[in-house]
Amino acid sequence: MNFERFEKQLAFILEADKEKNILRQTHLSNHGRRENDAEHAWHMAMMIYLLKEYANEEFDVARAMMMALIHDVVEIDAGDTYAYDPKAAESQKEREEKAAERIFGMLPMDQMQELRGLFEEFEEGTSPEAKFAKAMDNFQPLLLNNSNGGSDWREHGVKKSQVLKRHGNTALGSEVIGEYSRELIEKNVREGNIKDE
Amino acid sequence: MNFERFEKQLAFILEADKEKNILRQTHLSNHGRRENDAEHAWHMAMMIYLLKEYANEEFDVARAMMMALIHDVVEIDAGDTYAYDPKAAESQKEREEKAAERIFGMLPMDQMQELRGLFEEFEEGTSPEAKFAKAMDNFQPLLLNNSNGGSDWREHGVKKSQVLKRHGNTALGSEVIGEYSRELIEKNVREGNIKDE
Repeated sequence: MNFERFEKQLAFILEADKEKNILRQTHLSNHGRRENDAEHAWHMAMMIYLLKEYANEEFDVARAMMMALIHDVVEIDAGDTYAYDPKAAESQKEREEKAAERIFGMLPMDQMQELRGLFEEFEEGTSPEAKFAKAMDNFQPLLLNNSNGGSDWREHGVKKSQVLKRHGNTALGSEVIGEYSRELIEKNVREGNIKDE
Repeated sequence: MNFERFEKQLAFILEADKEKNILRQTHLSNHGRRENDAEHAWHMAMMIYLLKEYANEEFDVARAMMMALIHDVVEIDAGDTYAYDPKAAESQKEREEKAAERIFGMLPMDQMQELRGLFEEFEEGTSPEAKFAKAMDNFQPLLLNNSNGGSDWREHGVKKSQVLKRHGNTALGSEVIGEYSRELIEKNVREGNIKDE
């Protein structure tokens, strides 16, 4: 058998392995070490499946899970951009587009187009799958950070307006999870973990 | 709104976070550190989606991905059992059943039954989803280990008969990936990374 197509797929799969070494600002529960991109995506995909009943709209679960699993793959080249770092955000789009071209370009043409499409759909955030996946992208670190007494916000001196802005689109994917997120945020403001200004 | 059901789901999701601290014997590519259960499951789920065209039978992709994402959750209580440790394997089943009861028991009843069912289906390995997910459970560490010159086999002095036995059921999920696995194994035997006995 000719494994040419298969080996292109394997090259992408091995390349993606590098996500396990890209650290995020979020810490694991029980005041653990910093989380990496692969762990975050694993958690998001599991949450998409478990919490799908709360989505505002019907969506294709496998597509949304795959979107979650690969949404950070561009960070292999472009690095992680902290949600509350406006300077890094400026150059983020260009860095991530170059990365998408190289990394998804390892795949056979049809899958390159499909996965790059999923990645861009996530970034746009307008399809039902993207809206729910983005809600999980927000809610997963909120859950971990809240379980650690808001230590990630305290460490970075994050303000309420910043947190509300970041989590604003959660309700586009799920009204219920949006409401719960706002309650968690208010609780952390009251506890002084998020700056009330 | 009453968040009672939601908070049971969140309790399970937070409990699952502990999988990020359960180390496997496999090392990351580029001679990296040891991989953890969450990273392994993330990689498996991505591979299920990307390599589904090679499955012997049609299967439900979202179900198989979720099966992969949660198949090791019992190791939070029961620990990781190395594939080539026959002594640990003896008590594995009992330890894992207790763990399944406690951990899936955190979920609302319907999801407890669904996820415990997915876990047991994976263990049995007879449904199309389970056969393909198990093929990925075998193939993912093979791919990493092969990329590292077979260092995990060398470290443990693993024999060809053991490797062939472990990877024997890959072909039940995918003839193609089974064939490719056998070729990779033979190459590593020739290179002296796996003991030829």
